[in-house]
Amino acid sequence: MKEIKIGLLGLGNIGTGTYKALEMNRDIIEKKIGAKVNIVKILEKDIDRERDITVSREQFVSDPEDIFSDPEIDIVIELLGGVEPAATFMERAMKSGKHVITANKAAVAANYPRLMKAAEENNVQFKFEASVGGGIPVLNPLDCGARANDYTEVLGIVNGTTNYILHKMSTEGMDYDTALKDAQEKGFAEADPTADVEGIDAANKLSILMALLFGKYVHPDDIPTTGISGITKEKIEEAKENDCVIKLIAHATVREDGDIDYEVRPTYIRTYHPLAGVLEEYNAVYVKGNLVGKLMFYGPGAGPLPTGSAVLGDVMEIAKTMDLQDTADAE
Amino acid sequence: MKEIKIGLLGLGNIGTGTYKALEMNRDIIEKKIGAKVNIVKILEKDIDRERDITVSREQFVSDPEDIFSDPEIDIVIELLGGVEPAATFMERAMKSGKHVITANKAAVAANYPRLMKAAEENNVQFKFEASVGGGIPVLNPLDCGARANDYTEVLGIVNGTTNYILHKMSTEGMDYDTALKDAQEKGFAEADPTADVEGIDAANKLSILMALLFGKYVHPDDIPTTGISGITKEKIEEAKENDCVIKLIAHATVREDGDIDYEVRPTYIRTYHPLAGVLEEYNAVYVKGNLVGKLMFYGPGAGPLPTGSAVLGDVMEIAKTMDLQDTADAE
Repeated sequence: MKEIKIGLLGLGNIGTGTYKALEMNRDIIEKKIGAKVNIVKILEKDIDRERDITVSREQFVSDPEDIFSDPEIDIVIELLGGVEPAATFMERAMKSGKHVITANKAAVAANYPRLMKAAEENNVQFKFEASVGGGIPVLNPLDCGARANDYTEVLGIVNGTTNYILHKMSTEGMDYDTALKDAQEKGFAEADPTADVEGIDAANKLSILMALLFGKYVHPDDIPTTGISGITKEKIEEAKENDCVIKLIAHATVREDGDIDYEVRPTYIRTYHPLAGVLEEYNAVYVKGNLVGKLMFYGPGAGPLPTGSAVLGDVMEIAKTMDLQDTADAE
Repeated sequence: MKEIKIGLLGLGNIGTGTYKALEMNRDIIEKKIGAKVNIVKILEKDIDRERDITVSREQFVSDPEDIFSDPEIDIVIELLGGVEPAATFMERAMKSGKHVITANKAAVAANYPRLMKAAEENNVQFKFEASVGGGIPVLNPLDCGARANDYTEVLGIVNGTTNYILHKMSTEGMDYDTALKDAQEKGFAEADPTADVEGIDAANKLSILMALLFGKYVHPDDIPTTGISGITKEKIEEAKENDCVIKLIAHATVREDGDIDYEVRPTYIRTYHPLAGVLEEYNAVYVKGNLVGKLMFYGPGAGPLPTGSAVLGDVMEIAKTMDLQDTADAE
């Protein structure tokens, strides 16, 4: 049996979740793809942290070049988070002939053209399913199985923190500050919640969705973005009186002239719309295509194991074509 | 540019929809896969029927062997409907080295082991995305991107006719007969609605979902199945009083001892459950996986263009690995 060797950048929460997900479901994954899968090297400074996984000291490296220059490694998984050095590391890995997988929406959104160019020039695959919608298979289905469509619109609930806060305000009558505090206590919001509540995280994901669905790249800084910190109990009640709920929606629509309107902002959604039923910290991406009509993908938008599930899904997608890539390289 | 040549079995409603979908979105599809895609031969007796597509008399054949024995044809798409001769034709096509795509749930569910065996023995791909959930990408995401999961449960609203009837009974207070008549007038139910309203169609789809998710094949005739013809206005009201809606659910769950319970029947669904928001003729498949938790895929469960979208998605999935298959054949 062939072995797919992986170099992992970062063994924080998401890195550990991905490692653990592979430990848990190795048999299913290896049987499905017909190859062994092993994380052979890990770039991580914090070797001694307590983690619920079996990892040996020999797997850790302190110099990323130990991974990039290792001819045995087929795939590099980047789970460092943050724009840099993550983006530069991914580019470097692709230039070394490695396929690259990431869950890092900020690094992908800020560097989409550069990273896609690196993938194309080096004849490797660049996959980032986990960067939008966490564990939900969204990008792969839209890019493959449903790619026969001409897409005209996307509406996404792509941030779990804000959806949880709005849900609590709507169903339990909490005000914004109380709901934010509740989210922080439950682990759905960070100590500094700015990137989530101000819509920055959602803008990163909209940038990726637009690039993939419409072939149009817009830097997330250039997406008009309004967060939810201005949402009051009164506005929530007003929405209800109009048979609506307020959701933070990442929205892009193709106009008749071909231009694209895009924005992240709190939006009235009719209670009978499928997006209105996306409760608590769940995410969903709703698209319109010219053949299929309306599709929605729903599931957990974050968390170490769901994110690991999406990352391993990308490993399996790459595995499908790995012989093909090898043949192309040899020609 | 390479050309993928397709032989199409059947040019009825779904066949015509698939042909039209390819005409409409050929540029997107060919650009994405990097190859031309053409339906070169069509098995169909009714040559003169008025169809909103550009098809020449030379494309029609009356003997399916003209397609199976044509060495130029890479993929056979089966859209005849019905169990036979569809299943035998698909097996014959695979034995001739063709990849096979179908939307035919009855033929797949009744012959799953035989058809999978034919695919394996002949080293070809057998794809049937459109057989469950119509246009919704369900099987490909669950079998690929989200296949890293160990699945424990699936609940599907996989029949548009029954969902439409139950929706009308619930939202407009219609009785069963009135709602069925309304569905027939709108084209959501056939003149003989038995296969839909008695749950037979849903059992076919559950058989396919179980085989794919749990690796367990159960013939649809062996799935305990109750349809919706016994649902009264009173039962609908009773569900509402319990904060539920009644949906026809195809349900399978893995017990702790590894055995699987499975059934198709009208089921109480809590109003806050994502499946409760699947209205009108829409379909959805909801699964639980050990890594990802809960996922739901929502969209149109039928119709010529949505079904064509899923069929063409399968063409694109096969195209990804076609060079790989050629290499493997040559070895």
